[in-house]
Formats: sequence, structure tokens, C-alpha cells
Amino acid sequence: MQKTDETQSRLDKQFAFLRELDKEKQIIRQTYLADGSRLENDAEHAWHMAVMALFLSEYSNEKIDLLRTISMILLHDVVEIDAGDTYAYDEVAKKSQTDRERQAADRLFGLLPDDQGKHFKALWEEFEERKTPEARFAKALDNFQPLMLNAASDGKSWEEHGVRLEQVLARNGRSKEGAKELWSYVYEHFIMPSVENGKLKG
Amino acid sequence: MQKTDETQSRLDKQFAFLRELDKEKQIIRQTYLADGSRLENDAEHAWHMAVMALFLSEYSNEKIDLLRTISMILLHDVVEIDAGDTYAYDEVAKKSQTDRERQAADRLFGLLPDDQGKHFKALWEEFEERKTPEARFAKALDNFQPLMLNAASDGKSWEEHGVRLEQVLARNGRSKEGAKELWSYVYEHFIMPSVENGKLKG
Repeated sequence: MQKTDETQSRLDKQFAFLRELDKEKQIIRQTYLADGSRLENDAEHAWHMAVMALFLSEYSNEKIDLLRTISMILLHDVVEIDAGDTYAYDEVAKKSQTDRERQAADRLFGLLPDDQGKHFKALWEEFEERKTPEARFAKALDNFQPLMLNAASDGKSWEEHGVRLEQVLARNGRSKEGAKELWSYVYEHFIMPSVENGKLKG
Repeated sequence: MQKTDETQSRLDKQFAFLRELDKEKQIIRQTYLADGSRLENDAEHAWHMAVMALFLSEYSNEKIDLLRTISMILLHDVVEIDAGDTYAYDEVAKKSQTDRERQAADRLFGLLPDDQGKHFKALWEEFEERKTPEARFAKALDNFQPLMLNAASDGKSWEEHGVRLEQVLARNGRSKEGAKELWSYVYEHFIMPSVENGKLKG
């Protein structure tokens, strides 16, 4: 098949973006793997969240388009390639987070062909703004995935950062908007046992 | 909302599976990250492939259901939690690979509620057997993702393992069944430059 210059240039842009995204594997989060052996990175977190969406979508409060939800999840942290990971309980860094992440979105989605760049940047914004059922469910999973790992790793990250229950509850203030029943499960099985054994300060 | 015992038990099974999958982050592959700094793991590989599917689905030879394709990709390597990673060019290990992976699929998908276990184990088999358009496209990406990284990391893994061009071509013998145009691009941009600079033995 004879490829046109246009297709070549489109593929060049798509692969430039896909290669750049490799850097997401080097953005380290503050959550330990389940066995506590090391901290996880953004690519692993996005994969784990996407798998969670696949198996837990039945618990979304609202009907969701699962492909749209998973697409959003796969890309929700790409901005951290430029902006870095902002720890959920770091109130100083969170102040500048929005500006840093918007600039990153402009640069990264700007690597793509225009149609894809616009479409996926809008999807990233949809997630950030929590405006749709898909975004509300994805945002809930963005909180539940580290809660699952924090509980599995015996609260190691919470203990190291001296995190308090009230901070976890504030962070999850809107989680039940996405998945009420899952939130109850997470609260009972991942949060409360860590309070009871003193790893999460009550 | 009052949760029934049945829902609790369903969620227990789903989270047992999701927690077990965390181990995929510790299965190390033979491909280096783009910058050559370290080897990547299965979870990172699955995430990267899923993102590739999202941006490159227009190049599938046949019309595909993208959600089905991405679901398959997200889960295609879970069996390596028990069976380990089998290097693409290790002909001895490849002989026992099928049996080891089938046993792993039984155990892992068996952690799930029956309906989900059956559905997703079948999806994993569909990928392995390359029977559907989705499986053919996903299989092609399973080869193209490490080719992209091998080229980006200046053929480091190929050089270390003394891999030859004919092995890469044999491995990709059926890649064009999934995505002919992408295969041409990959051949020209990722494979041939590595032959020309001697990192991949001609």
C-alpha cells in the first residue's frame, strides 16, 4: 500500500505523543504497592484504575459509557509528566497544581494531530471538572485505588505522612457522587480497619 | 443504602482479584523504557498498549469494538503473575508457556464472581487465539509497543540479547493481519534504523 505524506505525518505525531507518554512510568506516587515493597508510578496507577473500572462499573451511581470512562482514566495523569505528582495531602503544592497541569495539557495534547489533540484534551478537562457521570465515577476510582493499596500495605504511606482520618474523608467528600455503594465498601474495609489499628490517625 | 450479603460477597471477590493483580507491577519484561534507564513491567506495558489502541485504532485492518480491544489489552498479561514473563526470543521457555499460562488463567479469573470470571477468561482466550479482529489488532500492538521502545532506547535490549532481524520478523509474521499500515511504519521507523546502526543484527 502506498502511504501518503499526510498519513506519515499523522503517524509521526501520534508516535511522538505515544513515546513522550513513556515518561509517565517515571512519575512516582506516594502510594506503596500492595506488598509495601516500593512506591507505585502513574502508569501503573492508571492501569490499575482502568482494570477497576472494567470490573466495578456496575456500581456507578449513574449509567456510564465504559469506553469513555476508561479512556479518561488511561490519560488522567499524563499532565504529571510536566507538572509532577501532587500528593493528595500537600496543601501548598495543590495551590499551583491547576495552572501547572493546564500548561502540561496544552503541550502534551498539542503533540497529536489536531482532531485527536482537541478530543482528548477535552476528555481530560471533563475528568478534571467532574461534570459528567463518567468523570464522577473515574474520580471516585482515582481515590479508591490508593485506598485499596494503602489498606493492603498496612497503612504504610499514611503512617509515614502522619495522615489523619479527617483528611481522607475530606479528600473523598465527593466520592459517593460517583459510586455510593463502593464508597461504603471502601470506608468499611479499607479506611476503618486502618483507623482501628492506628495506622491512620483518628 | 442497605447492602445485602450477596453484594458484599461479590465485592469481596472483585477486590480479591483487583488486589491480586497488583503483582503484575512486579513482572519485569525484557524491554527498556524509552530512555534506557530501566526495564519496564507488565502493568506499564499493558497501560502503554491500551493508550496506543486508543490513538491508533483507525489503522486496524478490520472494524473493531474499541472497548473490547482495550479490555483485552488491559488483561492480556495477568497470567504472567503466576507464569512469569516469557521473553519473545526464548525458544525453550516458550514450549511450556501455554500450559503455565492456562493454569494461571484458571486460578486468577477463578477469584472473580462466576459471571465475570467466565466472561473475562474467554476474552483472554480470544486474545491468545487471535480469532477476532479485536484480538488481531491487540496482538499487533503487543509487538509494536516494545518495538517502539527498543528503537527509542537505541536497541539496548536487542543488543544485550544478540537478537537478529530474522527473529523480529518471525515474531511479527502475523502483525500485518491486525494492522498492515502500522506494520509498514514500524518496520521503516523502528526496525530498519536499528539494523542500519548495528543494534539489531541483520
